[in-house]
Amino acid sequence: MSLTVVGSIAYDAVITPFGERERMLGGAATHFALAASFFDQVRVIGPVGDDFDGQSWEVLQTRGTITDDVEQVAGGKTFFWKGEYHDNLNSRETHVTELNVFEDFKPKLSNEAKACDVLFLANIVPDLQNEVRGQCQQARFVAMDSMDLWINIARDSLVETIAGVDCLILNDEELELLTEAPNFVSAANEILQWGPSSVIAKQGKYGAALFTKEGYFALPAFPLATVVDPTGAGDSFAGGFVGYVAAHPERPIDHQLLTEAMVYGTALASFNVEDFGTERIVELTGNEIAGRVGELQQMTTFAHQPIVLRS
Amino acid sequence: MSLTVVGSIAYDAVITPFGERERMLGGAATHFALAASFFDQVRVIGPVGDDFDGQSWEVLQTRGTITDDVEQVAGGKTFFWKGEYHDNLNSRETHVTELNVFEDFKPKLSNEAKACDVLFLANIVPDLQNEVRGQCQQARFVAMDSMDLWINIARDSLVETIAGVDCLILNDEELELLTEAPNFVSAANEILQWGPSSVIAKQGKYGAALFTKEGYFALPAFPLATVVDPTGAGDSFAGGFVGYVAAHPERPIDHQLLTEAMVYGTALASFNVEDFGTERIVELTGNEIAGRVGELQQMTTFAHQPIVLRS
Repeated sequence: MSLTVVGSIAYDAVITPFGERERMLGGAATHFALAASFFDQVRVIGPVGDDFDGQSWEVLQTRGTITDDVEQVAGGKTFFWKGEYHDNLNSRETHVTELNVFEDFKPKLSNEAKACDVLFLANIVPDLQNEVRGQCQQARFVAMDSMDLWINIARDSLVETIAGVDCLILNDEELELLTEAPNFVSAANEILQWGPSSVIAKQGKYGAALFTKEGYFALPAFPLATVVDPTGAGDSFAGGFVGYVAAHPERPIDHQLLTEAMVYGTALASFNVEDFGTERIVELTGNEIAGRVGELQQMTTFAHQPIVLRS
Repeated sequence: MSLTVVGSIAYDAVITPFGERERMLGGAATHFALAASFFDQVRVIGPVGDDFDGQSWEVLQTRGTITDDVEQVAGGKTFFWKGEYHDNLNSRETHVTELNVFEDFKPKLSNEAKACDVLFLANIVPDLQNEVRGQCQQARFVAMDSMDLWINIARDSLVETIAGVDCLILNDEELELLTEAPNFVSAANEILQWGPSSVIAKQGKYGAALFTKEGYFALPAFPLATVVDPTGAGDSFAGGFVGYVAAHPERPIDHQLLTEAMVYGTALASFNVEDFGTERIVELTGNEIAGRVGELQQMTTFAHQPIVLRS
């Protein structure tokens, strides 16, 4: 078993109604790895700069994550993003995006990285995702994320990349934007014709929905009275979801397995938003995850009582 | 068993991406009654004008709904609303609101209406809801809806009215507006301190969440590739939900019963939006409802497989 992720490693500055951080470890690959490392050994591919410090390496290597494929660019600076959440966290404003070492990033995969069993392509330029995907021919499950930017400026590349993966994980509004379908249900159904055998519509605070050729599954988000910082929630979801698949090499990757994976993705995402950046997941324990999965089951289970309806 | 609803009976004109209707039967009490009548005999209280035609009476009386308390105002005109849905049905624009007979509406309850076992106060002026609630002293379950208008212009009356009911059913954003809480979870938890023993956060296409003093339950919406007209979905939800409670006089009104009721509310709402106005629910059968409830269970059930997490 081995799980490779390619994506951004970053320093983030965020302002939320609950406080701010001027410089914290972030990036899609970071959040993914921290969540997925509960399930399998993760190998991270992505660039950092000279400024990437010892504590950040340590966090990235939590639970044995291998960082041999992380390229430290001499003279370069780590990707930096600064954003602010408004309107009860419902909207996000980007103040600064400095691509830095990410601007000229060309993923170089070691043989170990290429030999991965499961691959996650975090949100980067679609052509790079496609190139990495092509190098990992043995992977029995490949999932990917993307964003509205690529839908708007690189749609053809994105569609081609999607055709080569098993699972597309996207926000519901991005699914609609990508397909021009009137809702995420018809959007996801259309994308199932493009190549992937599963599509996940992330719905933020409302939860997530899974579409496969076998069926449909939806899970509400875990109810939190306080959300401190939503940054990285989608990547933590992907980490829990893809990690769960990676942890079950003996099972077929079918609708049933993916529904179980959805629950772990949902649990990990819910922990992620309880504190800034990686702060909550870094201290998270397996027992806490198991507890929340049990709570999610309790919160979504109902007895189906037959009832005689009037006519 | 008897179920009374007070609320609007209307003629609606709507424009959606799928077509339009110039004049169709609508109103909160109408949509509620059509859904709830699958579960119990419904008694409707609300005003109509001289223009209320025979076919409309017939639809309102579907499955034995009693219209003796519907007041036909001589020389008056039935409430009229005209609206248009934009942006994949995500936003609604009101073109015309003619209150007509609704402007001077003072609910007059017959003794039979007052003696109801279960009461639903659809969205009308909070003071009128409160007055009707006060007249139905024997009701063992009273639920109510409201809207942003009353939160903005009659908040004190609304809060007082809420304090006197068992269950508040509101859109999640309205719950946030009402309490000024940052999210619907903390909003609902706050309202549980005001008097009601249950609060439902309706989330439109995402589903609905139930908060009681015993726990939390959430159910995604039924996935529809085509939504024709969302008008009345919330009232159909309330009809299925409240109707299910009314249909079980022998059971305590606890978290368990309300979770089951949520499923029927969700099923009824999903049928409502499949066609314009009342057109789908009028032809709906009990077998179709039972089938959809079964599908909802299948779509939300997952196996909780214990897994050894890495540390």
